[in-house]
Amino acid sequence: MPTVTPERLKEAIGAVLTGVGASVDEAPLVAESLVRAEMRGTDTHGLPYLKLLVERVEAKMVAVPTRVTVVKDEGTTALLDGGNGIGQVAGWKAMETSLRKAREFGTGLTLIRNTNNLGFFAFYTLHAAQQGYVGIAMGNANAAISPWGGAEAFFGTNPISIAVPGGDDSLALDMSSSVVARGKIRRAHRQGEKIPVGWGLDESGMPTDDPGAALKGTLLPIGGPKGYGLAFMVDVLAGMLSGAAFGRDVQSFHQLMGPTGVGALLLAINVERFMPLGQFRALMTGYVESIRGSRKAKGTARIYLPGEIEAEKEQTSRARGIELQAASIEMVNQLLEKLKSAVRL
Amino acid sequence: MPTVTPERLKEAIGAVLTGVGASVDEAPLVAESLVRAEMRGTDTHGLPYLKLLVERVEAKMVAVPTRVTVVKDEGTTALLDGGNGIGQVAGWKAMETSLRKAREFGTGLTLIRNTNNLGFFAFYTLHAAQQGYVGIAMGNANAAISPWGGAEAFFGTNPISIAVPGGDDSLALDMSSSVVARGKIRRAHRQGEKIPVGWGLDESGMPTDDPGAALKGTLLPIGGPKGYGLAFMVDVLAGMLSGAAFGRDVQSFHQLMGPTGVGALLLAINVERFMPLGQFRALMTGYVESIRGSRKAKGTARIYLPGEIEAEKEQTSRARGIELQAASIEMVNQLLEKLKSAVRL
Repeated sequence: MPTVTPERLKEAIGAVLTGVGASVDEAPLVAESLVRAEMRGTDTHGLPYLKLLVERVEAKMVAVPTRVTVVKDEGTTALLDGGNGIGQVAGWKAMETSLRKAREFGTGLTLIRNTNNLGFFAFYTLHAAQQGYVGIAMGNANAAISPWGGAEAFFGTNPISIAVPGGDDSLALDMSSSVVARGKIRRAHRQGEKIPVGWGLDESGMPTDDPGAALKGTLLPIGGPKGYGLAFMVDVLAGMLSGAAFGRDVQSFHQLMGPTGVGALLLAINVERFMPLGQFRALMTGYVESIRGSRKAKGTARIYLPGEIEAEKEQTSRARGIELQAASIEMVNQLLEKLKSAVRL
Repeated sequence: MPTVTPERLKEAIGAVLTGVGASVDEAPLVAESLVRAEMRGTDTHGLPYLKLLVERVEAKMVAVPTRVTVVKDEGTTALLDGGNGIGQVAGWKAMETSLRKAREFGTGLTLIRNTNNLGFFAFYTLHAAQQGYVGIAMGNANAAISPWGGAEAFFGTNPISIAVPGGDDSLALDMSSSVVARGKIRRAHRQGEKIPVGWGLDESGMPTDDPGAALKGTLLPIGGPKGYGLAFMVDVLAGMLSGAAFGRDVQSFHQLMGPTGVGALLLAINVERFMPLGQFRALMTGYVESIRGSRKAKGTARIYLPGEIEAEKEQTSRARGIELQAASIEMVNQLLEKLKSAVRL
């Protein structure tokens, strides 16, 4: 597969973004999020996101340059309006706000309303961890999961990410509330394969192994009623409490049906309020060694820490270049050409 | 089944607790937690807990009366030492501390070290919700879940509870990080039944339908690596960051092997920092109606909200009395007799 360096990909994505009207301040940040998603193997948040974003900007459903405004800012809490702009710009500003507050007050909690798909959420929580803070982020999304016992999509796959300092500051849980992402079911459908029972329900709310039926139905939440409860609470905290859209009112980023109305929550906790950061990092070093060294299941060669697979892929991509499908390179180059940019991948 | 009123059960439990040395201040609070657990159908946190607690107090492995001390208290954050006392006393004081801080600063975050089993976690988060705050609580526990790919218990079932105001202030997610509690596997084992594959792993880390093999092995986390990540992060935030025990060092409340060393995290968020509480409650009313009214799966008569089944059981028990097994009543009466209390159930 062809490879490109992270720098070249970032430059090309940045040129696409400024080409459609993003500011020179925001383009590198958004490009960084997309490039890292590609490097980490979570590529739905990478180049496919870029294509969707450009379509939405051209359809005037995302406003660029992104104008994030402060609705409220009092002591430990803040509320931002994302200006229906690019999600990463609002998300980054929110985590920066929370970190500033956590530095001063111990914790910082910032909510965002009126934004769009924020890309991969460990982008924000790892930023907190790398500065010695616990980072917690969650956001809502368009309906994909039904209430437990239901047959109709109501909650998004509502991601939750938690990152903590320690190790090489790459420890991050970054999970959706569903067993699998819809993309996995779409892929099985394209390839004419069955899906395991437990991934999705058909339109009548019954378990199915037919990806076509699951795509018309809903995604199953992790742990049944537990994942339903998580998706519910993320929707309430990130969506309702922020004044964003929630429940079925959140629109899909994948369909040109108007502003998505997404909301998010970004929390930072100052480790130093509880123990010296050096002590915490030392405890974490011993902890991850114990986990790595614990007895493995038959056939398992290695135990990974939360976020470790993604962090290693990122390192490998940084060292050897990012593998991209020829079609993805072509897609970026076509966008650049259309936008009359001199840059090419 | 025989029934008792909540008041009588609370009085009897309170008499047992003061009989073994709990203070007259703490006994009613702890009794309230145990009685509500019985009423809510989460009875492992009720009378079986009482029996274990009394054994631990008599073995001098839990210190009563509970002396909770403030290790740190600065602005929005606090750290308490539970004095190896009764978990509910530390947990309640921690949530009260977080609520006081959230009233003043918008958020309050209190960690606890050196405590014991806190009973059911919605006890604390519902208290926050009833006062118009978002309540979030989590705690660690003795090893039951292995790292993903492992065959050795390392993390506890590490519960997470989130409650929000609205409806009748009874909306609470209260979940463990495992697919089922160990108690469910113990019951199948006693009754000579198989368990579904997906509940537990045997000693070699392989899926099993044999409850005996699963009891020697580990519990499966919800959503595979996702639940592993949740259990990991709860252990780090509630255990490591608080200075409590964590990982395999947390001892079981069920075995007399010394202090459990449990840690917990209690967070309160002031809704009013983001929108008027009345507006939030109104949005929540519409939200729960939409969920209840959404299309049901074939064969489902009703959609429940997070915590609604437990809240209804609690209401029913309050109205009609709490159903107790004759053996449970006998157990409480024997404790009362042994402690020379005049109270009987």
